Amino acid sequence: MTPSHYTPEEPISSIATALAPAALGIVRVSGKGCIELVSKVFSRPKALMAASGNTLVYGWIISEGAKIDEVMLAVYRAPKSFTGEDMVEIFCHGGPAVVMAVQNLMLKIGFRQANRGEYTFRAFINGKTDLTRAEAVKEIIDSHTDTSRSHAAGRLAGALFEEIDSIKKLIIDTLAAIEVEIEYPEDEETIADSFDRSDIELAARRLQALVDSWKGEKLYQDGARVVLAGRTNAGKSSLFNAILKEERAIVSDIEGTTRDWLESWASINGIPVRLFDTAGLRETSDKIEAQGVEISRSLVQDADVVLYLIDGSQGANEEDREFIDNCKEPVIVVYTKMDKNGVLGDKQLCCDPLGEGVATNEVRARGRLPPPACKISSKTGAGLAELFKAITDLLTADLGLSGAGSTTERTQAGLGSARQKEAVSAALESVRHALVSADDNYTLDAVVQDLEDALDSLGEVTGDVTPDDVLGSIFANFCVGKYAPK
Amino acid sequence: MTPSHYTPEEPISSIATALAPAALGIVRVSGKGCIELVSKVFSRPKALMAASGNTLVYGWIISEGAKIDEVMLAVYRAPKSFTGEDMVEIFCHGGPAVVMAVQNLMLKIGFRQANRGEYTFRAFINGKTDLTRAEAVKEIIDSHTDTSRSHAAGRLAGALFEEIDSIKKLIIDTLAAIEVEIEYPEDEETIADSFDRSDIELAARRLQALVDSWKGEKLYQDGARVVLAGRTNAGKSSLFNAILKEERAIVSDIEGTTRDWLESWASINGIPVRLFDTAGLRETSDKIEAQGVEISRSLVQDADVVLYLIDGSQGANEEDREFIDNCKEPVIVVYTKMDKNGVLGDKQLCCDPLGEGVATNEVRARGRLPPPACKISSKTGAGLAELFKAITDLLTADLGLSGAGSTTERTQAGLGSARQKEAVSAALESVRHALVSADDNYTLDAVVQDLEDALDSLGEVTGDVTPDDVLGSIFANFCVGKYAPK
Repeated sequence: MTPSHYTPEEPISSIATALAPAALGIVRVSGKGCIELVSKVFSRPKALMAASGNTLVYGWIISEGAKIDEVMLAVYRAPKSFTGEDMVEIFCHGGPAVVMAVQNLMLKIGFRQANRGEYTFRAFINGKTDLTRAEAVKEIIDSHTDTSRSHAAGRLAGALFEEIDSIKKLIIDTLAAIEVEIEYPEDEETIADSFDRSDIELAARRLQALVDSWKGEKLYQDGARVVLAGRTNAGKSSLFNAILKEERAIVSDIEGTTRDWLESWASINGIPVRLFDTAGLRETSDKIEAQGVEISRSLVQDADVVLYLIDGSQGANEEDREFIDNCKEPVIVVYTKMDKNGVLGDKQLCCDPLGEGVATNEVRARGRLPPPACKISSKTGAGLAELFKAITDLLTADLGLSGAGSTTERTQAGLGSARQKEAVSAALESVRHALVSADDNYTLDAVVQDLEDALDSLGEVTGDVTPDDVLGSIFANFCVGKYAPK
Repeated sequence: MTPSHYTPEEPISSIATALAPAALGIVRVSGKGCIELVSKVFSRPKALMAASGNTLVYGWIISEGAKIDEVMLAVYRAPKSFTGEDMVEIFCHGGPAVVMAVQNLMLKIGFRQANRGEYTFRAFINGKTDLTRAEAVKEIIDSHTDTSRSHAAGRLAGALFEEIDSIKKLIIDTLAAIEVEIEYPEDEETIADSFDRSDIELAARRLQALVDSWKGEKLYQDGARVVLAGRTNAGKSSLFNAILKEERAIVSDIEGTTRDWLESWASINGIPVRLFDTAGLRETSDKIEAQGVEISRSLVQDADVVLYLIDGSQGANEEDREFIDNCKEPVIVVYTKMDKNGVLGDKQLCCDPLGEGVATNEVRARGRLPPPACKISSKTGAGLAELFKAITDLLTADLGLSGAGSTTERTQAGLGSARQKEAVSAALESVRHALVSADDNYTLDAVVQDLEDALDSLGEVTGDVTPDDVLGSIFANFCVGKYAPK
């Protein structure tokens, strides 16, 4: 399994925590002789060398007599470690200067800076993990919401591996039955009689379910772009802030703050949503403002869902209708400031009846359904839950939640990457081809070939048979901390 | 030592690493029964409960049957832990969603969110650390450069504690000698004869050295503001980038990028420098640009050092001379683009001779020294080392590096906070008063009182005698991770 150009066991080191002030930080080393190497810059070398695996040793990291930091060392001895090699995790104080000083010292005393994903790669080549679990490490680190995390945790725990393994077993059992038939043919009737196709049909259904799961998994991994649009003073910034307050962003608060747009991650019913607050969309003669309007337009074009805001106390005008008519992206019309009209829904709205007035004649003429509409108050929070449901419905509408149930029901065995989806799709095609071959009364050898192709494809998913270049691209995406030394 | 309103041993929990995607993250818990509490949501509760102190246990964090994350638990048993209590550190994957899911689960099963600095506070009240070391934890986490880190590490290792302790010993020995004198007076000559004032004089000198160290320590902790100014196209952005490339910022790259100014941390000879690149300073009719110029002016006014850039291939003009004349902050004149004039210094410069031409008649008339000047090329990096030396000289010029030697020589016993400086200053004053009392032939009781006051002040530094409110303000500044739950 080890790519030919790779040197296993070479001592490697990297920062394993984010580089920002915090109570604790971790520098992690792995490879042959790594414990001895660390002991050369440790205040209690004998205690460290004598430490059993899975124990903690207190002391100071010291360089040429100068104390670097007071640390705890977690000692792991091969093969009982994440990588399967000897390992040390250095728990130091979480200041960037401290963590970098420790890491730079490691590089000085003979460790090589670890490449992205190299620890997980070593775990894989040392048989500590299969590819689905290895990929899940990256997925769980990058997950933006708790739902995303729980999907990734299922794969990390081996749910996908077990599902693939169980499908492989169906195919292998069938192949075994066919082999017997080939060796000791009972009659010359039809191929259909020579093996139990129900197992292969079951395998096809389960492979289809996995393929179907990918769209949903992708949504929970990558998230969706939701853009707030509308005229100036339609209430965009208020809604932006209300959503962030209600569904606290997990990763970060405001990422970019410019005169042109604001953006932030938010969790909407567990779906990671990248929320954009755009400048107003009206025509303008101001050069800089015109630039903002142009950017808003392109944000709208890249949106998965557009929330088009209309001041509910003022109602829609021609400009609003034109935008909604011409918007090619899925749009939800949001009537804002409904607190100004008293209790929501109790009083006659001064704006057009929802979903009617905004769907202009042109929309009706083209036979499009009027867009969904919501009434909200960013001030009181009223209507936000309904808005979130409308967004969720739009985002999950085309997830192909057929047969195998919704993604939320079967998160534990969903696919985690486009690579996995390709391989599973190929396996599905081979299995289906086997069924067709049997129906058309091809030779048993042809069926055997199809099923073996399917097994190969599934082997790529778990890493039993994975070419070097595929391994390279998988592990190059991993997170080994943020710091690349000068 | 425990403040009356505080409940020790109550189980507390917090995120100990920065909340950004990384390989690993840590959730830390401490207090009575914390190991048992964690075991309720751990896949191998028996293994955890049976674990000895300073060992690592592998397993899954599980909530109501759902797997949260695959983790290693570091188990510490009282009193052998950072806080002196039972502790568990949960090493999970470093995704924000994962770390938050684990922390939220801890809060759900009975842990209280730890307050800022609460772990270190418990270490202090359990006698695991004195106040100087406790404060050094925050200092080392916040250090911006490797030099800052090394100063803090010295205090963390107890250098300041030992220096204070050794000064206390001088005073205590003197007090003991005086007590004997009071009990068994030999004669009625002068007070000066009744104790050895050389010890007290030594104590005064060492206290003075500590007080003197604070300005330098503060510079290395807080850093200095260095502002790049000059006419448009003087080469400000090129120098800004060249400095960042040469002296890589430790904490972050560009912090704020607006049309008005850029800023970033950089390390200049180990001094943390907050570097500002301002807009040009020329008068303008453009409204937005005028705003930028206004901001530049106020950045200059807050600067510790202003680098005033002049295009060396063009030379200084009236506007440049006016700025330098009127600038109240320490300024260094920097001639840029010297590569355009061939090898630096080899050819005649077209600009005025350095330090002469820019020091106008007005400056000479006022008797001010001409500002220091440097020739650089941001393109080749030539002259940057000299510029850094000039900046360092200006920043350290008034650090009072008298008697006790420079801060770099005696980093190990420098003061780490304004609080410590106040207490040490008070001690110094009491000791000096004791010497005056002796000179003026006051009663021995008066001298005793002065020396006891000095001991009390020193006790505040190390935490032997520290009022509750002082403790509160010290520990409220600590870093316990970035996450406060909803």
